Amino acid sequence: MKQIEFKPIGIIHSPYKKMKGTPIQSSAVKEIEGTIEIFPEYVEGLSDLDGFSHIQLLFYFHLSKKFKLKVKPYMDDQFRGVFATRAPSRPNSIGLSIVNLIKIEGNILYIKNMDMIEGTPLLDIKPYVSKFDDANVKKIGWLENKIHKLPKTKDDGSFLKL
Amino acid sequence: MKQIEFKPIGIIHSPYKKMKGTPIQSSAVKEIEGTIEIFPEYVEGLSDLDGFSHIQLLFYFHLSKKFKLKVKPYMDDQFRGVFATRAPSRPNSIGLSIVNLIKIEGNILYIKNMDMIEGTPLLDIKPYVSKFDDANVKKIGWLENKIHKLPKTKDDGSFLKL
Repeated sequence: MKQIEFKPIGIIHSPYKKMKGTPIQSSAVKEIEGTIEIFPEYVEGLSDLDGFSHIQLLFYFHLSKKFKLKVKPYMDDQFRGVFATRAPSRPNSIGLSIVNLIKIEGNILYIKNMDMIEGTPLLDIKPYVSKFDDANVKKIGWLENKIHKLPKTKDDGSFLKL
Repeated sequence: MKQIEFKPIGIIHSPYKKMKGTPIQSSAVKEIEGTIEIFPEYVEGLSDLDGFSHIQLLFYFHLSKKFKLKVKPYMDDQFRGVFATRAPSRPNSIGLSIVNLIKIEGNILYIKNMDMIEGTPLLDIKPYVSKFDDANVKKIGWLENKIHKLPKTKDDGSFLKL
């Protein structure tokens, strides 16, 4: 099937400069702040966004060059199917984070709950709306007995070696 | 900035054959079923996914050819910045839906809460985990007084005209 081409709409600026030590989920890092620089040609599309307290960021895991179909997640010691994980080494390396939008000044978004690395290319922004995005979840698979590890788990650099 | 290339990992099969009349959010269509055909070379990556009741699908709005930075959302009568909406006509036309995973048989996923159109190319699957994905939302901007319209709002085909 033919390839699909996307072009970054901005760049994420983060206090995390390398993969190792970067938090693995935005929900684990409530207070970490960062900014997003939107390229001037897309700024008009930011109108009305400042009314939302939370936004979804779709970004490109630009440091993840190869993918594997079985990966060992940060919070587990067994290999799992990559689609049952949030590992960056995916066939299409798209990341998804929900962050708290503090304010917008011109082409700069000020955000909290930063779990991306410096220089990450941004692909899309969507408003987070509980009615659309909160699921009535019954089962969380292999994470059931691991999720308590979330607050303490950081990127250990292992996906760089894939 | 340079382009990023993605390749579909599968195809979404839906009872909705055209944009007009397709639901606009998966949360509005609890009972609509569909299937996802994963291409054989990616099936190994589905391991462990059946433990999750809900999954996030990232897909390509393949019918949306052009984008506009201001759009009139289905549930509103005013133009809004595209990043403050879920409109398909985005600079990078990536869609995000949370669906209920019923079962997996070989390379076929059986899902509920289908709001995609037949033939939609699938880019990624991630497990939905409340702890990662439910935000403590304070403000939903322009949607505040519109969201009651969600159960009755369908695609009216307007984004085809963009």
